[in-house]
Amino acid sequence: MRAAVLRDGRMVYRDDVPEPTPGPGQVLVAVTACGICGSDLHFASQGEQVLAATQAMSGSPSARASVDLGADIFMGHEFSATVLDAGPGTDTFAPGTPVTSIPVLLANKGIEPIVYSNTTVGGYAEKMLLSAPLLMPIPNGLDPRHAALTEPMAVGLHAVNKSGITPEETALVLGCGPIGMAIVAALRTAGVEDIVAADYSPIRRELATAMGAHRTFDPAQGSPFDSVTPKVIFEAVGVPGIIDDVLRRAPVRSRLVVAGVCMQPDTVHPFFGVAKEISVQFVLAYEPAEFAASLRAIAEGRIDVAPLITGEVGLDGVGRAFDELADPDRHCKILVTP
Amino acid sequence: MRAAVLRDGRMVYRDDVPEPTPGPGQVLVAVTACGICGSDLHFASQGEQVLAATQAMSGSPSARASVDLGADIFMGHEFSATVLDAGPGTDTFAPGTPVTSIPVLLANKGIEPIVYSNTTVGGYAEKMLLSAPLLMPIPNGLDPRHAALTEPMAVGLHAVNKSGITPEETALVLGCGPIGMAIVAALRTAGVEDIVAADYSPIRRELATAMGAHRTFDPAQGSPFDSVTPKVIFEAVGVPGIIDDVLRRAPVRSRLVVAGVCMQPDTVHPFFGVAKEISVQFVLAYEPAEFAASLRAIAEGRIDVAPLITGEVGLDGVGRAFDELADPDRHCKILVTP
Repeated sequence: MRAAVLRDGRMVYRDDVPEPTPGPGQVLVAVTACGICGSDLHFASQGEQVLAATQAMSGSPSARASVDLGADIFMGHEFSATVLDAGPGTDTFAPGTPVTSIPVLLANKGIEPIVYSNTTVGGYAEKMLLSAPLLMPIPNGLDPRHAALTEPMAVGLHAVNKSGITPEETALVLGCGPIGMAIVAALRTAGVEDIVAADYSPIRRELATAMGAHRTFDPAQGSPFDSVTPKVIFEAVGVPGIIDDVLRRAPVRSRLVVAGVCMQPDTVHPFFGVAKEISVQFVLAYEPAEFAASLRAIAEGRIDVAPLITGEVGLDGVGRAFDELADPDRHCKILVTP
Repeated sequence: MRAAVLRDGRMVYRDDVPEPTPGPGQVLVAVTACGICGSDLHFASQGEQVLAATQAMSGSPSARASVDLGADIFMGHEFSATVLDAGPGTDTFAPGTPVTSIPVLLANKGIEPIVYSNTTVGGYAEKMLLSAPLLMPIPNGLDPRHAALTEPMAVGLHAVNKSGITPEETALVLGCGPIGMAIVAALRTAGVEDIVAADYSPIRRELATAMGAHRTFDPAQGSPFDSVTPKVIFEAVGVPGIIDDVLRRAPVRSRLVVAGVCMQPDTVHPFFGVAKEISVQFVLAYEPAEFAASLRAIAEGRIDVAPLITGEVGLDGVGRAFDELADPDRHCKILVTP
């Protein structure tokens, strides 16, 4: 079957990937759409760094450390699909049912994240395996391309939930990429009454307004903290220096939610945090219930993800799409539609 | 009157400081005892750095920035005292009443922290001014030397309160100086059932046990994280590198409370925090209610601060005491008794 795989840091098209066979409890699906995630770009360009950082860390079981960068790597964890077939003795939805799922495969050898793997096929492929107990049917006749954005929207919802923000607290979202936009949408859905978004790109600031931001700022014109006194700051940029800048400028007792993934070592001044009693909540991914809630919010029209989709490519266009995503003025979310 | 003042980075004895005159709402008190705080040592040796860091920061009004390092500086914010006299029209406790107070002076020009000042006398002096509305009488015939430890114990209580720890959550306290010990005592008072304390000094580990730690660790023998899986980590060391080490080793979704004051830039790997969804709460000082609660806990015998007091000097011995506090095997808290 056809797939796009990561080989030597580049996404490569293949038409000779063996079709996976569903085991007990597993379901073979045809991928309808799969979003390209910033973390995939990170991994493609800095895979060694990601693996080294994971291995340097204790306190967290991680399957990523077993990835062999010298072999082809399957990726793609923001997908929608239709049911094709089920493994032996597996009760699931009828063939043809449109579904999505959290990117986790329950296999004999244990729980396997569908994220970076030499063996488990992800969403950048014609077909893939999912887990019957984790399948969620796509409701309300929702466009499956929109359903593919359930995953990133769940990341935003999780960040907002972890922040404990209340409607009357001002939120400042730094960075208007897909995760920043998911945060803006989740804040709007949560009824937050003053949502401020900052990004250097005018196109992305427009997108932030479309997704629910009440005000936007261009950091090139000065720090947003000069005119905004946020109670909660969402960092969705993930580059060195931004955490320290927030600690330096944020108001007393404000809360910083770090949703950006900065892979490099970063310099901070703990004194700024101490002097202002700032709290910093690092966030990752989401709970299954948050994934389900995001799917519902999209299917019921409470979140319109259409403006986020700025491109669509086939499996043979994934490599080019990875390159194009480097330009924030051109693209936000590109879907791969096999 | 007599006082010890900071001059060119050294504590100097003076016997020619003018006695302050209480204004309306102010009370003149005779200092009974004043503890030497680690932050005073910091300020004495790195005053320029403290002021520069304060000025580099926005979002926080701070009076410290106005201190002139070229002139004598009054310090001492952990004090007990007896009432001598009151300002015009000021209703307060009778002369001779033993009191303490949060280190804040309400003056005509506004609210002034009693911490580092060229003009407002602190606790390293024979007499000082306090604010009538903030005075708390020392109850139960409590030894006023013990009452002087209300302030650092309130810092520990505040750190514990901000952590939201519950009794069944394991606490790991890194650093067994006065603040680490105040945190251990507050954890014990809060009923936390597994309190682990780590310090390189055997004397300080003994002290931690005396203050309520259930287990202690010597970090020279290996990371405490190899044998402890804490839910809440209290950082009471304040040197570069410790925050990153916690992010690297702490369990998934654990909470780090930063009570140590690291004045230098520090390097962290945000990726560790993200991958494990760690929260970091920087803490400073306390609420007035926490100060009052600490005084009650000491006066009612729920917290015994006696083991923390390892030395006592007069106003002419403050300089030497600052030097001696550099050795963690010799001293924890030195009281100045004018």
